[in-house]
Amino acid sequence: MPASYAYLGPEGTFTEVALRTLPETATRQLVPMVSVPAALDAVRAGEVEAAFVPIENSVEGGITTTIDQLAVGEPLMIYREVLLSITFALLVRPGTKLSDIKTVSAHPAAQPQVRNWMRDNLPDAIWESAASNADGARLVQEGRYDAAFAGEFAAARYGLEALETEIHDAENAQTRFVLVGRPARPAAPTGADKTSVVIWQRDDHPGALLELLQEFAVRGVNLMLLQSRPTGEGIGNYCFAIDAEGHIADRRVAEALMGLKRVCPKVRFLGSYPQADVDPADVRAPRAGTSDGEFAAASDWLARCQDGRF
Amino acid sequence: MPASYAYLGPEGTFTEVALRTLPETATRQLVPMVSVPAALDAVRAGEVEAAFVPIENSVEGGITTTIDQLAVGEPLMIYREVLLSITFALLVRPGTKLSDIKTVSAHPAAQPQVRNWMRDNLPDAIWESAASNADGARLVQEGRYDAAFAGEFAAARYGLEALETEIHDAENAQTRFVLVGRPARPAAPTGADKTSVVIWQRDDHPGALLELLQEFAVRGVNLMLLQSRPTGEGIGNYCFAIDAEGHIADRRVAEALMGLKRVCPKVRFLGSYPQADVDPADVRAPRAGTSDGEFAAASDWLARCQDGRF
Amino acid sequence: MPASYAYLGPEGTFTEVALRTLPETATRQLVPMVSVPAALDAVRAGEVEAAFVPIENSVEGGITTTIDQLAVGEPLMIYREVLLSITFALLVRPGTKLSDIKTVSAHPAAQPQVRNWMRDNLPDAIWESAASNADGARLVQEGRYDAAFAGEFAAARYGLEALETEIHDAENAQTRFVLVGRPARPAAPTGADKTSVVIWQRDDHPGALLELLQEFAVRGVNLMLLQSRPTGEGIGNYCFAIDAEGHIADRRVAEALMGLKRVCPKVRFLGSYPQADVDPADVRAPRAGTSDGEFAAASDWLARCQDGRF
Amino acid sequence: MPASYAYLGPEGTFTEVALRTLPETATRQLVPMVSVPAALDAVRAGEVEAAFVPIENSVEGGITTTIDQLAVGEPLMIYREVLLSITFALLVRPGTKLSDIKTVSAHPAAQPQVRNWMRDNLPDAIWESAASNADGARLVQEGRYDAAFAGEFAAARYGLEALETEIHDAENAQTRFVLVGRPARPAAPTGADKTSVVIWQRDDHPGALLELLQEFAVRGVNLMLLQSRPTGEGIGNYCFAIDAEGHIADRRVAEALMGLKRVCPKVRFLGSYPQADVDPADVRAPRAGTSDGEFAAASDWLARCQDGRF
Repeated sequence: MPASYAYLGPEGTFTEVALRTLPETATRQLVPMVSVPAALDAVRAGEVEAAFVPIENSVEGGITTTIDQLAVGEPLMIYREVLLSITFALLVRPGTKLSDIKTVSAHPAAQPQVRNWMRDNLPDAIWESAASNADGARLVQEGRYDAAFAGEFAAARYGLEALETEIHDAENAQTRFVLVGRPARPAAPTGADKTSVVIWQRDDHPGALLELLQEFAVRGVNLMLLQSRPTGEGIGNYCFAIDAEGHIADRRVAEALMGLKRVCPKVRFLGSYPQADVDPADVRAPRAGTSDGEFAAASDWLARCQDGRF
Repeated sequence: MPASYAYLGPEGTFTEVALRTLPETATRQLVPMVSVPAALDAVRAGEVEAAFVPIENSVEGGITTTIDQLAVGEPLMIYREVLLSITFALLVRPGTKLSDIKTVSAHPAAQPQVRNWMRDNLPDAIWESAASNADGARLVQEGRYDAAFAGEFAAARYGLEALETEIHDAENAQTRFVLVGRPARPAAPTGADKTSVVIWQRDDHPGALLELLQEFAVRGVNLMLLQSRPTGEGIGNYCFAIDAEGHIADRRVAEALMGLKRVCPKVRFLGSYPQADVDPADVRAPRAGTSDGEFAAASDWLARCQDGRF
Repeated sequence: MPASYAYLGPEGTFTEVALRTLPETATRQLVPMVSVPAALDAVRAGEVEAAFVPIENSVEGGITTTIDQLAVGEPLMIYREVLLSITFALLVRPGTKLSDIKTVSAHPAAQPQVRNWMRDNLPDAIWESAASNADGARLVQEGRYDAAFAGEFAAARYGLEALETEIHDAENAQTRFVLVGRPARPAAPTGADKTSVVIWQRDDHPGALLELLQEFAVRGVNLMLLQSRPTGEGIGNYCFAIDAEGHIADRRVAEALMGLKRVCPKVRFLGSYPQADVDPADVRAPRAGTSDGEFAAASDWLARCQDGRF
Repeated sequence: MPASYAYLGPEGTFTEVALRTLPETATRQLVPMVSVPAALDAVRAGEVEAAFVPIENSVEGGITTTIDQLAVGEPLMIYREVLLSITFALLVRPGTKLSDIKTVSAHPAAQPQVRNWMRDNLPDAIWESAASNADGARLVQEGRYDAAFAGEFAAARYGLEALETEIHDAENAQTRFVLVGRPARPAAPTGADKTSVVIWQRDDHPGALLELLQEFAVRGVNLMLLQSRPTGEGIGNYCFAIDAEGHIADRRVAEALMGLKRVCPKVRFLGSYPQADVDPADVRAPRAGTSDGEFAAASDWLARCQDGRF
């Protein structure tokens, strides 16, 4: 396995900044890729050890390209997540004043985060979509556009200066990134873990989602994310990307997953991994009756009942 | 273990008739006992191999003495059930006419089944409770009462004649009896089985019953009986005697029982045994996703996920 | 309407003691009846204003005769409930010593409450069932039996003395009685009310009970009693007597009842009445979203939505 | 109110084609707008009677911009929906051959629908995002790009020719559009209706989504779409856009909406309108117990109970 990680490039994006927070990146080659599918395909092809891609942000919700790429094709697994606070800088060529700006560029995902700021400060500027925020900066460097929204860290790389920083329509804007590799045994539970799956519901079965959620609820497993995604089989056909609290090694999670496996036409396990920025000491105890110890005690009791020794 | 069965006596009751439908009674000594507790205590004390007692009838519901005795004390297990249709005969000393009858006796449990018939045919007769229907017949024989409601089969034993037969207020009146022994490995599943448990709910937890029922529902286990019984700890404190479709060896039942074990302060397993009068061929298939095969497939899948091989 | 209340007689029973705790009995004629059905039929026939009968006790659970009589026949309604602590005295003819007692009598319902005491103190005495505890006392007075278990208050009436008092196997033994009349508008809510219904579930509909309980749960209505009763249509056919927290005038209760009415083949409303011994100040607030104010606000909102004014 | 409809422009997009299927467009001015927010703001400002925008497609799922714009700001209501099958043509300047194509443009939403086709047929072409498919066609006309994916109908408008038609990765690719206006009384039910709402769940309340779905389930209301959207208050905070079967004038829907209104901190009603392409004759009957007639009968019964007349 090559000691390299692919990531959604180009260099100088939030993705790279987030990726570099992982200690092991110090000893790995980081390879920018042109798109999320390209990054994930590199993993599938064995060209890189893992890929680092955005999966959710607090303004736009689930990053559908990533979710969809994980949901189908050769199986992949999530090993890590990273949360990064997102604020934008308005980058310009040195000397450019706000009143000079006629065109502004960024990745479309940036738009909802800067919309209000633009309305107030650049009401007449024309928005030009770029393939990435860094790419927008590059196009400003090349003189194609007047300004770009990007991370402040991109200024130096492209010889630009930040006319304004800390631009963000929503407070607490964050993006969640995941490190994705080929399937392998998940890391051991830390006590503050998360398990990701994609589940498909049976056709023409109203109320089905409720039943699926009950597979979690009856075992006391809390959900952290539920994102519907079209299955591609026509309007109204959805699968669900779900993040649940806990680790597949936790018996309550394991039993819930088996329940889903039995009642869904298809379930894809996407991994169990540590929750970013959560200290296991702060995780609330599992609901009464759902700890591993209680599961083990119930198994023992069942065995005694089945054996007639009680 | 002595080759004898205790039963709720005296001789000549419906209980004895039901008991004699079990083939093995041909080779066992049948011992009438004065009460259900006495019969069950004989099992606990090892004086008899098993006890045969009524547990439910279609007019009165659960036989509370039996349920309560199974719910507490040294554990016992149900191994068989028998259903018997119940109709009464009015037994009198030979020569007695309907118009001669001033007093009539039977076990109180017979009353709801003969109430209407008495109102129409013996409106002025006085009801005298007897310890059993057979005992009522004996008291008629002794001249203490004029008539007794009992099984027609009791007439010969007590030198009485049946003035009227087939008396039953409700159509389809049936009593269900169970054969109870000390705990041992339950008989193998037949495909038409029943599992009995008693469950206690946590105090002061409104909605708790709903949660307990969901432990069954989410695994597709149907309930056949739910009988609340006071715990003896004050008005409003109840436990529940439950009969569920299926056998503890069925994985859906096993998982549901473990779920109950985890969330209830107390669960008592009372046995898995064949449903009386049900042909396995007539049992509907388990709900999609709850067969043993589907459970096994889900376990395999889980193991592969936990191992990262998929 | 005659100013009289029937009650389950004879005089000198716990029922009479409980009935006399109702202030209005001071101005009413109290008529002992031979049985619960007789008492309720007197109400239906208009011979009395109401009947006072036991409906639940903490040792035996629901009094099935009462529940069954309320569930069918001409509709009746519960207007009041009374809780009475039950302890027994052992009544004998003056001069009788414990060692003299060969026979002891009481109503069968007393048996579970004195069983342990008898085992310890009168192991060889023969139990003789009486039509009521007071009747047992009368038979002692007449010399037919040596002792009777009854309320201590019965001693004076029958010229007996209490050889022992405060006999009760279970701590907190209580019986709940209800005052039953013909249907009329229920009394206004007090803030600590209870609503009684009997519901029938659809045949051959596994999981049906769960659905019925969800009609309560989704509106935040807590259950205080759930008693299954056979419908008389064969083993396994049950209806359920349910006591729910709250008053039919409470909107959450009203909506839950309508929900039951729609999904059950039959629902019988048995009344809304104050909870005995509960101070409205001690009643916990309804679950968030289920108060009358929140119902009213939601209705207003719906009307605006339906009207397009929002 | 000006007799004009805004729509997501420019002219020559699928949106315009879908809009023109509405008969009333024959008599209205159709105004292309630069973005969904611009179209909806024109409605809010009273500049147009309604706006026509895409809300869901079978490849990408919910159109998040539209959903987010409906979820917040001055209330709007959906009055109609239109389903349009989406297939792409590859538009080029006359004379261009497939092997000439180095750059290809379209709106990013087109990408998942043409990805496979591009991989197979234009593996080396560079993708250039356009503000709309029609805009991509315009840029081809201007010579900036070599080809554009767009509806075949756009060829004529921009002097292009279709080198290939019927391009679509997914079979049954459809887009759903809605006609949005200011709040007014919804049109009467047709028997095949849909109701749209956005609901917010209480913070830090795991299992909350399950409870919200039960508000629908217990009243037999089926869900057709559930789309989570971030609330903008940080990762993991979601609201849900829901389409439910039925009309707010249906009592089961009305009661479910009131239930949501009571338990959610915020509910926004987005309208009840006819389901596109569904014949009321093909709509399955409501679940037993949830028809308007059954609701009315239950209300009558409740009134009689509250009045004591039964």
